[in-house]
Amino acid sequence: MVRAGIVGGTGYTGVELLRILVLHPQVEVSVVTSRADAGSRVDQLYPSLRGYCDLQFSPPELKYLQGCDVVFFATPNGTAMLMAEALLALGVKVIDLSADFRIKDPAEWEKWYGMQHASPGLIDEAVYGLPELNRELIKQARLIACPGCYPTAVQLGFLPLLEAGMVDTNGLVADVKSGVSGAGRKAEIASLMSEAGESFKAYAVAGHRHLPEIKQGLARVAGDEVGLTFVPHLTPMIRGIHATLYARLNSRGKDLQALFEQRYREQRFVDVLPAGSHADTRNVRGSNRCQIAVHQPQGGDTVVVLSVIDNLVKGASGQAVQNMNLMFGLAEAAGLETVALYP
Amino acid sequence: MVRAGIVGGTGYTGVELLRILVLHPQVEVSVVTSRADAGSRVDQLYPSLRGYCDLQFSPPELKYLQGCDVVFFATPNGTAMLMAEALLALGVKVIDLSADFRIKDPAEWEKWYGMQHASPGLIDEAVYGLPELNRELIKQARLIACPGCYPTAVQLGFLPLLEAGMVDTNGLVADVKSGVSGAGRKAEIASLMSEAGESFKAYAVAGHRHLPEIKQGLARVAGDEVGLTFVPHLTPMIRGIHATLYARLNSRGKDLQALFEQRYREQRFVDVLPAGSHADTRNVRGSNRCQIAVHQPQGGDTVVVLSVIDNLVKGASGQAVQNMNLMFGLAEAAGLETVALYP
Amino acid sequence: MVRAGIVGGTGYTGVELLRILVLHPQVEVSVVTSRADAGSRVDQLYPSLRGYCDLQFSPPELKYLQGCDVVFFATPNGTAMLMAEALLALGVKVIDLSADFRIKDPAEWEKWYGMQHASPGLIDEAVYGLPELNRELIKQARLIACPGCYPTAVQLGFLPLLEAGMVDTNGLVADVKSGVSGAGRKAEIASLMSEAGESFKAYAVAGHRHLPEIKQGLARVAGDEVGLTFVPHLTPMIRGIHATLYARLNSRGKDLQALFEQRYREQRFVDVLPAGSHADTRNVRGSNRCQIAVHQPQGGDTVVVLSVIDNLVKGASGQAVQNMNLMFGLAEAAGLETVALYP
Amino acid sequence: MVRAGIVGGTGYTGVELLRILVLHPQVEVSVVTSRADAGSRVDQLYPSLRGYCDLQFSPPELKYLQGCDVVFFATPNGTAMLMAEALLALGVKVIDLSADFRIKDPAEWEKWYGMQHASPGLIDEAVYGLPELNRELIKQARLIACPGCYPTAVQLGFLPLLEAGMVDTNGLVADVKSGVSGAGRKAEIASLMSEAGESFKAYAVAGHRHLPEIKQGLARVAGDEVGLTFVPHLTPMIRGIHATLYARLNSRGKDLQALFEQRYREQRFVDVLPAGSHADTRNVRGSNRCQIAVHQPQGGDTVVVLSVIDNLVKGASGQAVQNMNLMFGLAEAAGLETVALYP
Repeated sequence: MVRAGIVGGTGYTGVELLRILVLHPQVEVSVVTSRADAGSRVDQLYPSLRGYCDLQFSPPELKYLQGCDVVFFATPNGTAMLMAEALLALGVKVIDLSADFRIKDPAEWEKWYGMQHASPGLIDEAVYGLPELNRELIKQARLIACPGCYPTAVQLGFLPLLEAGMVDTNGLVADVKSGVSGAGRKAEIASLMSEAGESFKAYAVAGHRHLPEIKQGLARVAGDEVGLTFVPHLTPMIRGIHATLYARLNSRGKDLQALFEQRYREQRFVDVLPAGSHADTRNVRGSNRCQIAVHQPQGGDTVVVLSVIDNLVKGASGQAVQNMNLMFGLAEAAGLETVALYP
Repeated sequence: MVRAGIVGGTGYTGVELLRILVLHPQVEVSVVTSRADAGSRVDQLYPSLRGYCDLQFSPPELKYLQGCDVVFFATPNGTAMLMAEALLALGVKVIDLSADFRIKDPAEWEKWYGMQHASPGLIDEAVYGLPELNRELIKQARLIACPGCYPTAVQLGFLPLLEAGMVDTNGLVADVKSGVSGAGRKAEIASLMSEAGESFKAYAVAGHRHLPEIKQGLARVAGDEVGLTFVPHLTPMIRGIHATLYARLNSRGKDLQALFEQRYREQRFVDVLPAGSHADTRNVRGSNRCQIAVHQPQGGDTVVVLSVIDNLVKGASGQAVQNMNLMFGLAEAAGLETVALYP
Repeated sequence: MVRAGIVGGTGYTGVELLRILVLHPQVEVSVVTSRADAGSRVDQLYPSLRGYCDLQFSPPELKYLQGCDVVFFATPNGTAMLMAEALLALGVKVIDLSADFRIKDPAEWEKWYGMQHASPGLIDEAVYGLPELNRELIKQARLIACPGCYPTAVQLGFLPLLEAGMVDTNGLVADVKSGVSGAGRKAEIASLMSEAGESFKAYAVAGHRHLPEIKQGLARVAGDEVGLTFVPHLTPMIRGIHATLYARLNSRGKDLQALFEQRYREQRFVDVLPAGSHADTRNVRGSNRCQIAVHQPQGGDTVVVLSVIDNLVKGASGQAVQNMNLMFGLAEAAGLETVALYP
Repeated sequence: MVRAGIVGGTGYTGVELLRILVLHPQVEVSVVTSRADAGSRVDQLYPSLRGYCDLQFSPPELKYLQGCDVVFFATPNGTAMLMAEALLALGVKVIDLSADFRIKDPAEWEKWYGMQHASPGLIDEAVYGLPELNRELIKQARLIACPGCYPTAVQLGFLPLLEAGMVDTNGLVADVKSGVSGAGRKAEIASLMSEAGESFKAYAVAGHRHLPEIKQGLARVAGDEVGLTFVPHLTPMIRGIHATLYARLNSRGKDLQALFEQRYREQRFVDVLPAGSHADTRNVRGSNRCQIAVHQPQGGDTVVVLSVIDNLVKGASGQAVQNMNLMFGLAEAAGLETVALYP
C-alpha cells in the first residue's frame, strides 16, 4: 500500500483527492493536514466522507508527513515550494497540484505569481505532470508539477495539431469556460451563488496566470514560441471546463479526425469523439477523462477543437493520482475507473 | 458473474443502472433494450459510457432477455407487469424500478395509476425492495418492487419513530423536495431548464401517486393506518431529494438521536448524522446513501426529521442494485462503494 | 419629489432599493452610503445602474443624510438602532429593513440577536411594515420596521386562517424555502455557488431569528400565543421564497378559497391564485407580489397554503418602498408596477 | 395609443413582448394569438401577467389582427412570411422577430432554413431592425426583420472595428455563449434542466443559421465579404448572451476604447464599459441594453471584444419594441426603461 499524505485537505482539490484515494485499492491515506481545522475530524467538515475516512486534520508540519510515501500539495500557490525539498530529502515523493513548479523560468513565475520563489533549485527537476506528454519522465520523477486546469484542457486540444505542424502557431485562440469550483473554496463575493449563478462573464482578459504555463507547454511541442490569445470565462455550473480552440490550418486536405484519433489511441484518459460530435462537460463530470471533438467548419481553413474535462479531476486531483500511479508502478487507471455522473 | 439485462435503458434510471453495473465486479450487463433506439450503440446516446459499454440497444423482447439471470425494468409504469410473468417462468429474476408491483391492493393501484393491472396475481409475491425493512425477504425473492424515490426518503425518516410508537400517527407531514431528474428524461415543457431553473414550486398537492405507497409502508410499520399529508416540490437542481418530516411526539424525554442511531447502526446505506446536524443533498449526490438528521426544535413536542437521498441512486437504481446483491448472495455494497460527488 | 437616502447601499437589499427607486416617478435618491466604498461611484460597483445613478457612496454619517425626507436602512442588524433617533429628531422618516425594531419585547430581541438594544425607547413607536395588516398605522408612522422575508411569506399565508379562527393554532408548521440571496452579499463559504448550487438543505432547525417575529405577528392576529414549527431551507436559486404552510382545520365545510380571495380582494400586492393552482416563485421574480394558493388535500382536515414572494422585493426592498408610498401619501404601487421576469 | 397584436404569444419572445408592452405607456395590446391555446386566458398560462393582461388567446387569423396598428410575429420561422403581405395591405405594420425577412438572398435563406420562401417579394422592403445601424430606415419602415439574438450581440461588438477598417476581416472569430431560453419554449430533451443544467457545450459548429445573417451584416459594414468562424455554445443559465469576439488589428497604436465610446455615445441601449472592465450578462438581465468591453491583451495585435445582451430583450422582444417606438415616432426608450435584475 502506498501511504499518501495530503497537505491542504480542506480545499476542493484536497477533498477531491480524498474522494478518489479513499477508494483507491493500493493507497492508504495516512495524513491530511489543515492549519485552520487541525484537530477536527475530516468527515465533520465533509460528511460525504463519513465511513470512508476516520482521520483528523493534522497541522501542516513535516513530522506528520515523514512517514508517507507520497505527499500531495492541494495548497494555495507558495506553500509546496517551502516544504518540497525537506520531503524529498526524506525520500518522500511530492506531487504539487499548485503552480509552484510549473514554470521553468523563475523570473517569469515570480512576475505572474507576485512572490519570490523559495526553491528555484528544484524547478528543473520537477516533471510537468501531463501523462499524455511526459509519461516516461513521470515514472522516474520524485517531484511532479501537476498542470493547471485550463492548461490541461487547452494543451490536450492543441497537441496533435502542433506536433503535426499543421497550424499557424502565431494566431492561436483559446476561449475557455470554467465552472466555479475552479475558484476554490474561498470566501469571496465573486464566487457567491448570487453573483456567479445565472450569469456568464470573461475575466482576466488582460492576462491570466495560466497563460505562461500554456504558452510554455505549447512552445515545447511546437519547437518555437507560439502566439496565443487566452480568454478564461466563468460559467454558472460547479464542475467542468470547456475549451474552444481556434487555429488556422497551414495546409488543406488533412484528415484531422484521424490525426486526433491516432494521437490519443493509447491514451486511457483522452477520448476523441466521433466526427461531427460536440463535447459536453456533463459527460466527464466526476471522471478523469478528457473528451475532444475536432471540427473544420464549412471546410474552411480554421480548425475548431472542443476539449472538455472536469476541472477537479483531470484538471487537478484525478490527474495527480494518475501521476502517482505512474510514479509507483501501479496501473495508470487504478482508483480512476469511474463513469461520469450523468445526469 | 451475474448476467443482467436492463429494459428501458434510455431513461435516467436506466443510464444510472448502467453507470453502476458496468463497474460492478460481479455483474456483466448483457442486454439493454430500447424500443426507440434499438440498433444504435448505447454509448452514442450516452458518451459518458464510452469505453465502458459496447452494447447496442436491443428491442424490448423476451428473446433478448431470456439469457439473463436478472432483468431490471427501468421503464414507465405499465411495462414490467406485461413481461414479468414470462421472465419469472424462464427462471429470470425481476427487479422493477417502476410502480407496477408496489401497491398491494390492485384496486388502489388502478385508481392512482389510471390503468388496469395486467398481472395482479404477481403482486402478492413481489417483495417491496427496501432492504432496511425487508432484507431477509429480499434475499429469497424472485420479484422485487423497488420503492419510489419519495417513499424511500420518507419511510427511512419515519421508520424509527413509528416502530417505537413514539409519535401521533394521525398528523404526519412530509414536505419533500426533489431535483428535476425525478421527472425523468421526457420532453416536457415543465421540465425545461427555462421553466424549472431558478424557481421553486409545489406540485400535485391534491394527491401524488407516491402517497398510497408511503401510507401503505408506514401503516405496515405502525400497525395501523396513518394520517399523512405529503407535499412534493420541485427544486432547481438535477439530483437529490430532501424530505422534511414533522410528527407530534406522544411522550417527552426520549433520546431521539439514540433511537435513530440504534435503528440504523447495522444499515450500511443509512447514515444518522451527529446531533445538531443538517442533512444536505450534495453529500449523497451520486451515492447510495441516505443521510438523516433528527431535531426537536426548542425541546417542544414536534420532531423534525431531515432525510436526504440521491433520487437516482438510493431512490432508484442504486437501491435496485442493492436488492440484486441481496438476491444473488453478493456483498450488499458490491458496486455501490462510492463517495458522493462534492462539490 | 421625495428625497430618499439609503444607508448600506452595497448589499442586495440596498441595490434592490436602488433598482426600484431610480425609476420611481416621485422619488429622487439623494444619498447612498457605504463605509467600505465611500468615495467610489455606485455604478462602478453595480454596472446595472450605469445611466440611472450618478451618485458616489457617502460615509454613513448623519450630515449626509439630514437633507433627506426618508432614510432606508439596508444594513446589518444593529445599525439602524444607532441612528434612527437622531434622524427622527431631524424630521427624517426612517424605514428599517433590518430586524432592529421588529420585536416588541427588547429582552426577546436581545436573546435572538445577541446584542444589547441601543434604542429600546423607539421600539413601541415603530410600526411593523406589513401593509396588508397595518396600512393605516403605516400612513401615520415616522419609523417603520420592515418585516423579514420569511415572516412576510408566512404571515400572509396564515393570516386569513387565523383571523377567521379556523385552525388549531397549536400545531402550525411552516416549511419554508429560500433562494440564496437571502443570505446577503457576504463572503461566506456556505453561500458559494460550489456549496449552495445543486444542493438543498435545511438550516437553523433548532431556532431561526425569524421565528419570534413570526410568532409575534401570528399571535397578534390569533389573539393568543401560537405553537409554530418553522424550518427554513436553502434552495439552489438566487431569488424567491416558497412557504408551504400546514394547519389543522378545526371545522369542516368552509370554503377556504373564498376566504382567501375575500381577505385579499383589495390588496394590490397579494394575489390569490385560482383553486387548484400551485404557486411558483418564478412568477413573482422581480415583482412586489405575493401569490398564494390554498389546498385541502383529499378533503381532509389539513389545510396546505403555498405562499411565494421574491425575498428581495416583497420580502424586503419592494415592501419598504410600498411602506414609503403609504407614508408620503403616494399611490401604494408607485414605482412597483413591474411584471415578474419570466422565464 | 398604438394598438399592438402579437402572433405566437405562448413562446418566450411572445410572453416577453407582453411583459414589456403591458406596461408601455403608449401601447395597448389588443390581441394575442395562439393556435394551441386559443380561447384560454393569457394569464392562466402565464400567472406573472395576472392583473396586467385580461386577454384570451385568439386564433392566428387575419380578422383578429386587422384592427391593429402593428403586429409582432413571435412565431417559429415560416409563419410571418405567410401573413405579412396581407397585413401590410391592410395598413398594419409588421415587426417580425423570426428569421423570415433577415436574409436578403432568398436562395441563401432557403438553404439555411430548409423551406421555400413564401414571400420573396417582400424581402427587399424589409428593414433589418438594428437601430444602432439602421435607425432612419426603421423610422420609415412598414416591415421590420428583427435581428437574431446572436447576430445582435456579435454585430454590435464588431461594428466599430469594421466601420473603422481596423481589423483583418478574413479571420474573425465569434465565440458566443447563450442561455437556454434561446432554444425557446419547446418540449425537447436537449433543453431539459437535467440535460442542460450544470453542463456546457458547443453546438452547430458545422454551421448555425445565424451565420449567414451575421456575415451579411458584417459584410455590409465592411464593404466586402468577411471570413468569420462562429461557434455558438449553450451555457447553464436561462437568460443572457455573451459574445467573445477576436480579430487581428491591421495597425497598432489606435485607441480602441475611444473608438467604441465614440461610436456608441448617442446610442441609448449600447453601453461601452470603462477600460479594463469585463461585461457580465447579469448586468443586462431583463434590460434592453448591450454592454461592451474592449481589450487588447498584452498590447498585442489581437483585439478581444466582450459583448453581452439579454437574448430575450435586446436580442428579441426589447429590440422589437425599440423598433416599434421608432416606427411610430415614440421615444426610442418608451417602455424600455428598466434596470437589470441583479442579483
